[in-house]
Amino acid sequence: MDALLVTHLPDVRWLCGFTGSNAALAVTAKQAVLFTDGRYTAQAREETRGARVKIAEKSALRECCALLEKQAGQARFEQVGFDPEHTSVAALELMRSGVSAGKRRGFFVALKKPLISALRMVKDEGELALLTKAADLGCRLFEEMMPRIESGMSEVRFAAELEFLARGLGAEGMSFETIVASGARSALPHGRATAAKMPRKGFVTLDFGVILNGYCSDMTRTVHLGRANGEERAAYDAVLEAQEAAAAAVKAGVTCGAVDKAAREVLEKAGWGKYFTHSTGHGVGIEIHEQPRLAAGQEMRLEAGMVVTIEPGVYLPGKFGIRIEDMVAVTKSGSRNLTPVTKSWIEL
Amino acid sequence: MDALLVTHLPDVRWLCGFTGSNAALAVTAKQAVLFTDGRYTAQAREETRGARVKIAEKSALRECCALLEKQAGQARFEQVGFDPEHTSVAALELMRSGVSAGKRRGFFVALKKPLISALRMVKDEGELALLTKAADLGCRLFEEMMPRIESGMSEVRFAAELEFLARGLGAEGMSFETIVASGARSALPHGRATAAKMPRKGFVTLDFGVILNGYCSDMTRTVHLGRANGEERAAYDAVLEAQEAAAAAVKAGVTCGAVDKAAREVLEKAGWGKYFTHSTGHGVGIEIHEQPRLAAGQEMRLEAGMVVTIEPGVYLPGKFGIRIEDMVAVTKSGSRNLTPVTKSWIEL
Repeated sequence: MDALLVTHLPDVRWLCGFTGSNAALAVTAKQAVLFTDGRYTAQAREETRGARVKIAEKSALRECCALLEKQAGQARFEQVGFDPEHTSVAALELMRSGVSAGKRRGFFVALKKPLISALRMVKDEGELALLTKAADLGCRLFEEMMPRIESGMSEVRFAAELEFLARGLGAEGMSFETIVASGARSALPHGRATAAKMPRKGFVTLDFGVILNGYCSDMTRTVHLGRANGEERAAYDAVLEAQEAAAAAVKAGVTCGAVDKAAREVLEKAGWGKYFTHSTGHGVGIEIHEQPRLAAGQEMRLEAGMVVTIEPGVYLPGKFGIRIEDMVAVTKSGSRNLTPVTKSWIEL
Repeated sequence: MDALLVTHLPDVRWLCGFTGSNAALAVTAKQAVLFTDGRYTAQAREETRGARVKIAEKSALRECCALLEKQAGQARFEQVGFDPEHTSVAALELMRSGVSAGKRRGFFVALKKPLISALRMVKDEGELALLTKAADLGCRLFEEMMPRIESGMSEVRFAAELEFLARGLGAEGMSFETIVASGARSALPHGRATAAKMPRKGFVTLDFGVILNGYCSDMTRTVHLGRANGEERAAYDAVLEAQEAAAAAVKAGVTCGAVDKAAREVLEKAGWGKYFTHSTGHGVGIEIHEQPRLAAGQEMRLEAGMVVTIEPGVYLPGKFGIRIEDMVAVTKSGSRNLTPVTKSWIEL
């Protein structure tokens, strides 16, 4: 590929630092040019590194495509790659309308493999430091907030306090809608905090992340209010064992599917397999969900520098749910846990 | 069009109530079927109205397409419409791979006009009530937080307190990253709250919104710390006049471009035209940015029931910026301001 058109905002940010909400980046062998609009004139000049900034008169995307066509004529290249995952059918139409008729067919070519997200998977030292800081902040939030969990408190109140503390400690925001799922609601893997009151007896699942310096954290802990019964305790122990088995399986060269399998086998042996209804984890970085996916059958191999979540869970509809999640950095010999806060059984 | 495939999540929510992060909705003359994945088994059953729920084995999108093909055979239709704005080039490829080879070409057809977002533009009574509630909460936040603005306080601290209060008052979250732009930073139209301290003298622009019951609010107020100079005061007065002129121009039947023009003319006459670097407003609803766009030359006509922002601003790079924004509901005879909190000059 001779040239690239990059429009996915996290890719733009990763490549040149610009964080605005409208961007089209033309990358050729010789140079990179960022197009945005008048709202971002000052911000683009301040943030952008390694690319010239142009403020589009009308459409940043169309003007970027027109420049690429001009450069193609000068530098004699014939194709521009784009990311089909993050380019809408309508945007492709608009891109084509920005180049002269003769060039429309075949000028823009969908990349067969996600080039930038593949590069983004493996974090450099600076990124690992930022992800470690974000994960540290997540751990601190859990440690400070966990003792405040109590029956009768609304989930959303707890989430509000956690988010306020996060902001006070420097977070730009949360990396996703905070999950506080208590009692029977803990059986909802994505149980966003509601006005529901925490029960006298039952699990509370906390799944949250912060954005710090543009990088996301992600972690989950599940604690129990009141005395647990045998089934609840057995399920917790199984999830914890699965989580630790999967984390222990992480190492450069191992397939993503093998890590998922490590968690799944523990839960299947213990009889909870059918209640583990999602995949084991995902990459984290500028986005909360990045490549790779740690799911059944995934053949992609882990590489040193990848940062992934390890988050098995079991969910018994109408009864309870449990999930335990760490964020780990892949190393040559294994992994480094970025969220080393306790996972032991906690009864409050 | 005989059938529709809906995958844009706000459209799915609007059509059937489901709020999960993975969904494909097949709509035919006879029925609607929602596909999602195992994480949402319980939630989908609880939330979905007017559609059958299916939990996909592997890919919700592909299984939805396979069902549409089967239904096409039974009900004798030949085309399925999709939204090209919110369907990626890769998703279209996946959709096509879900139907048998003979049907691939021409089975999925890009809708020429955005069907669902056009329907969503005009809010019904229930939606207007929800948007009014969300906007009310925004006003209350401004009233309670405005007196807390003081020089030396960090922008992010202020944002944290505002967001905490919002959560405490029932907001599910903020509808976008809170903007607190103080001093020279107020010249950044999208100046997210940073660690910068509010100055002894200068503007502070607050642009924020909440999500309440799934609907977004959006409002902006700009206040001044310390004594303003003549230029600052003149600019404020011009922005306020432009904002009121545009709001007064709102009425069913008027073009979106005419509302933009009403604001722009005031600022041009007063000599600030070149510093008004964005459009005048946008629709608001389940999403923070919806149709219509109130921008130069937009021929679309306002209809009763649309809810739009009116938000002109002026930005002098390196010096200061001012923006004033209301959310208004279009009526037959004019408009109703959903954010009637004071816009008068405030010096703190």
